[in-house]
Amino acid sequence: MNLSNLTDIYSRELFDRVIPFWEKHSVDRVNGGFFNCLDADGALYDTKKYMWLNGRQTWMFSKLYNSVEQRPEWLEIARLGATFLRSKARRDDNRVYFSMTQEGKPLQLQRKIFSECFYIMALAEYSRASGDASAMQEAKNMLELVWEWSSDLSKVGRPSYEGETPAQSLAIPMILLNLIEEVAGENKDEYRSEVDECIRRMLLHVHPADKTVYELVTPDGGFIDSIEGRLLNPGHAIEAGWFLQHWAQHLKRDDLSRTAIDMVRWSYERGWDKEKGGIYYFLDSKGYSPTPLEWDMKLWWPHCEALYAHLLNYSITGDEYDKNAFLQVHEYAFSHFSDPEHGEWFGYLNRNGEVTHRFKGGPYKGCFHVPRALWLVWNKLKEIK
Amino acid sequence: MNLSNLTDIYSRELFDRVIPFWEKHSVDRVNGGFFNCLDADGALYDTKKYMWLNGRQTWMFSKLYNSVEQRPEWLEIARLGATFLRSKARRDDNRVYFSMTQEGKPLQLQRKIFSECFYIMALAEYSRASGDASAMQEAKNMLELVWEWSSDLSKVGRPSYEGETPAQSLAIPMILLNLIEEVAGENKDEYRSEVDECIRRMLLHVHPADKTVYELVTPDGGFIDSIEGRLLNPGHAIEAGWFLQHWAQHLKRDDLSRTAIDMVRWSYERGWDKEKGGIYYFLDSKGYSPTPLEWDMKLWWPHCEALYAHLLNYSITGDEYDKNAFLQVHEYAFSHFSDPEHGEWFGYLNRNGEVTHRFKGGPYKGCFHVPRALWLVWNKLKEIK
Repeated sequence: MNLSNLTDIYSRELFDRVIPFWEKHSVDRVNGGFFNCLDADGALYDTKKYMWLNGRQTWMFSKLYNSVEQRPEWLEIARLGATFLRSKARRDDNRVYFSMTQEGKPLQLQRKIFSECFYIMALAEYSRASGDASAMQEAKNMLELVWEWSSDLSKVGRPSYEGETPAQSLAIPMILLNLIEEVAGENKDEYRSEVDECIRRMLLHVHPADKTVYELVTPDGGFIDSIEGRLLNPGHAIEAGWFLQHWAQHLKRDDLSRTAIDMVRWSYERGWDKEKGGIYYFLDSKGYSPTPLEWDMKLWWPHCEALYAHLLNYSITGDEYDKNAFLQVHEYAFSHFSDPEHGEWFGYLNRNGEVTHRFKGGPYKGCFHVPRALWLVWNKLKEIK
Repeated sequence: MNLSNLTDIYSRELFDRVIPFWEKHSVDRVNGGFFNCLDADGALYDTKKYMWLNGRQTWMFSKLYNSVEQRPEWLEIARLGATFLRSKARRDDNRVYFSMTQEGKPLQLQRKIFSECFYIMALAEYSRASGDASAMQEAKNMLELVWEWSSDLSKVGRPSYEGETPAQSLAIPMILLNLIEEVAGENKDEYRSEVDECIRRMLLHVHPADKTVYELVTPDGGFIDSIEGRLLNPGHAIEAGWFLQHWAQHLKRDDLSRTAIDMVRWSYERGWDKEKGGIYYFLDSKGYSPTPLEWDMKLWWPHCEALYAHLLNYSITGDEYDKNAFLQVHEYAFSHFSDPEHGEWFGYLNRNGEVTHRFKGGPYKGCFHVPRALWLVWNKLKEIK
């Protein structure tokens, strides 16, 4: 297959099928913010609002406005998201709620930093779209706080217990590295020492001898032989790979670029279901049954991450291996997740590739992974061509 | 099929295949307590100990000792469980940990009351087995505390937020009702007002007009039209049915007995997968896709609950409907979950009935639902015969 033929396919999928779904069904023009629980056809099945997803959608519409076309309706949607977040979702102590009622009354707060991370991402990109400098300042101040919290989660209320094995999670340095990319924009050197620290911590999870990227390791990178230490999340490791690759390119570090390529390839090779196709959600590094009940399901977002990660690798290596991996995921994703009838993608398939959940939006699926991947791939395809 | 032929099948399954698996593989004779993470053949894949499961296994071996045969090895296993629980799992403030290291160092505490509930259940039955009256006193004191906590979960650290819909969960009155049955033993009238209150609260979840048992309702029993309010757990509602039936029999209340029968029948009719067989884990009462990723899986424990609940109904009604429902679950369970090779049952199947997780014990599966159901059914079959 010729990659150049795909540019139009990605453009149509993004602008004709995915973005219109969210424009039409998710926007709450009364209270601001976005509804997230949208059935196959966009019908609302729960009025709760999830702040991870409200932040991510605000980011996405700001990004489209900034990088594709300055459509006033995109800026207005971003504004509705940013205003809801800033006026409702952030508490006096700077914690951001996980979920809220449609009017913006609090429902749940997590003992994690991710609501804050997506809040920061939203405000940084929205500031560029709207020209509202106070949003960027707020994003930078929050990033400083989250940086502090991230190395001591007791600051967001997470208890610790005597028997725990000291451990660090890949999710933390990885999301901070991506956040810095988003907040810094063109001024990438502003956060140089923080970037170095994120990269140092991410590399502790990469074990070349096992060709494995572990989600949880000891603070010096050691393997933890437990349910949690052996748990692999191939889609997450693939995402970490392209986050790292962006910095490897900026820093012009070939060693890091090589590692980022390996992270994607190893995780894909292990995560791809050779019998049924698609990328497993979880695996156990020693081959035990992973304990999450959904381990063998095929979720939309690991496939979104893999699409862009493989194509990014191909744009660097020119290696047919990466191109073929991209095409393999492309075939699977477009034939299984895409919904030509109502737009957006289905999110959840069983191991055999059958849709198990008909909704397009839910507590953890919003306007983010699909349009971000389509936009990144579309841009990269144009570049390669 | 003649029910009397089944008595031996249940006896063999329980005493030759299930109990020996746990006797052989789970007991930690060094530290006391029980390992829970046991692979298909009993091999240990994680050394953590889960206190829900340690409490339940202590209860099970005490119950076998008290009701089947006074085997010294069963009492010794119960003693190892009870001693670990009492010396390691309970904190000074009477909270019980969720998980611990094999030596009994704390790993996790939940903002829920279930660890405490299974601790109480264990100690009450162990007291009868061992003659240790202090264990019964401790169980009764803890029950009083848990009763108090259960009506205000902020006492176990659960935060509440302004936007929340006031709601009550079926799990709470249901487990308290079962706990009282276990703690009271022959002295059932000791807790008469608490029993009445549990029954009152359970009945708020039973909506005859919809033939539905809701997991979450408003404090006056109203339907909540949200993801959480519509979520049905047929196996859980079936279990609630037989918990209630035990009290209906004791209180000689025909109205309650009728309701308990309905709870089981309605939940079974809705929960049984007419196309592929087996009982769904979750459903949405209005037919939306349930948001838990594992909703269409077939788990061992709803089938365990259904086995006993249907047979109990049949012993009361004499109705072929209940007998056939029992036999339908029996056929499915023994042909899908049972493992003649290594003993115990597999726990997790996909919708098609294929084993997705090969382990016999995990963080939420221990020596409890399978042996409890086999023991209850075996006793009931002997009674019917």
